[in-house]
Amino acid sequence: MGIDPGYAIVGYGLVRKEGNNIKPLQYGVIRTEAGKPIEERLGEIFDDLTGLIEAFRPDSIAIEKLYFNTNEKTAINVAQARGVILLACNRAGVPVYEYTPLQVKMAVVGYGRAEKKQVQEMTRSFLRLEKIPKPDDAADALAIAVCHAHTAGSVLYKRGEV
Amino acid sequence: MGIDPGYAIVGYGLVRKEGNNIKPLQYGVIRTEAGKPIEERLGEIFDDLTGLIEAFRPDSIAIEKLYFNTNEKTAINVAQARGVILLACNRAGVPVYEYTPLQVKMAVVGYGRAEKKQVQEMTRSFLRLEKIPKPDDAADALAIAVCHAHTAGSVLYKRGEV
Repeated sequence: MGIDPGYAIVGYGLVRKEGNNIKPLQYGVIRTEAGKPIEERLGEIFDDLTGLIEAFRPDSIAIEKLYFNTNEKTAINVAQARGVILLACNRAGVPVYEYTPLQVKMAVVGYGRAEKKQVQEMTRSFLRLEKIPKPDDAADALAIAVCHAHTAGSVLYKRGEV
Repeated sequence: MGIDPGYAIVGYGLVRKEGNNIKPLQYGVIRTEAGKPIEERLGEIFDDLTGLIEAFRPDSIAIEKLYFNTNEKTAINVAQARGVILLACNRAGVPVYEYTPLQVKMAVVGYGRAEKKQVQEMTRSFLRLEKIPKPDDAADALAIAVCHAHTAGSVLYKRGEV
């Protein structure tokens, strides 16, 4: 399961690895209501993500690493949501792996300076989907899942060990 | 209950307002083990804080607002911990109030450019404690609790409403 963290919208994408094949299972987003207190939005993210983990029982969860170079208030809220996402993974007993945007690009496109759109297109092609999934957050989450499926067993990047 | 957010150490301080008096009830810190994966440390914060909230049943929880001007990695982890702290408050059904460092200084010292040490000393004096509580995180949490006790009912700053 790949997760693109956020507080207004959290992308998720599930894939299954079968031999050398990676197949898409499900993807989508969790949305929280603007204007609600942040603690309620965090509560919704925790509940909805816990529900998804219980429903799909992923072997592992891959989540994009955060960098702060955007709007400060947004960045704080995204990091707060990411904390709640990590807690949900921990409570569900699913191991968490973290990838930088560079690692996702390298794993999916094989080129570290790939554009976001190229990553989405390669993910689509790889999973034999007709169209790039919408919204972007779901497409990005699938790319992270593909990155992890590619990487797992080789260059494992276990959260907290680095 | 005041909370000084962090991921290695979370300060908490409880006060009771009786008429014009504000009395200290309890203060301390939650520590998490360095080297453990961040999701486990977030889990410990959630559990320990939930235990404290259940034990003391505060009417409200005041938490310091974050600003990012420090080390980026630390800042992301503090924000992730703060997300888990907000979730614990939400799960316990206790309303959360947020104060900026400036608001805490104004409420406790009456002077927005007060030094951290002055805030701690005024908090100590105000609560008639013999010494400034240790560690700093507990002293800072008590200052936030005093700020809220002063402010509640006048200039309420409800999280999410701004």
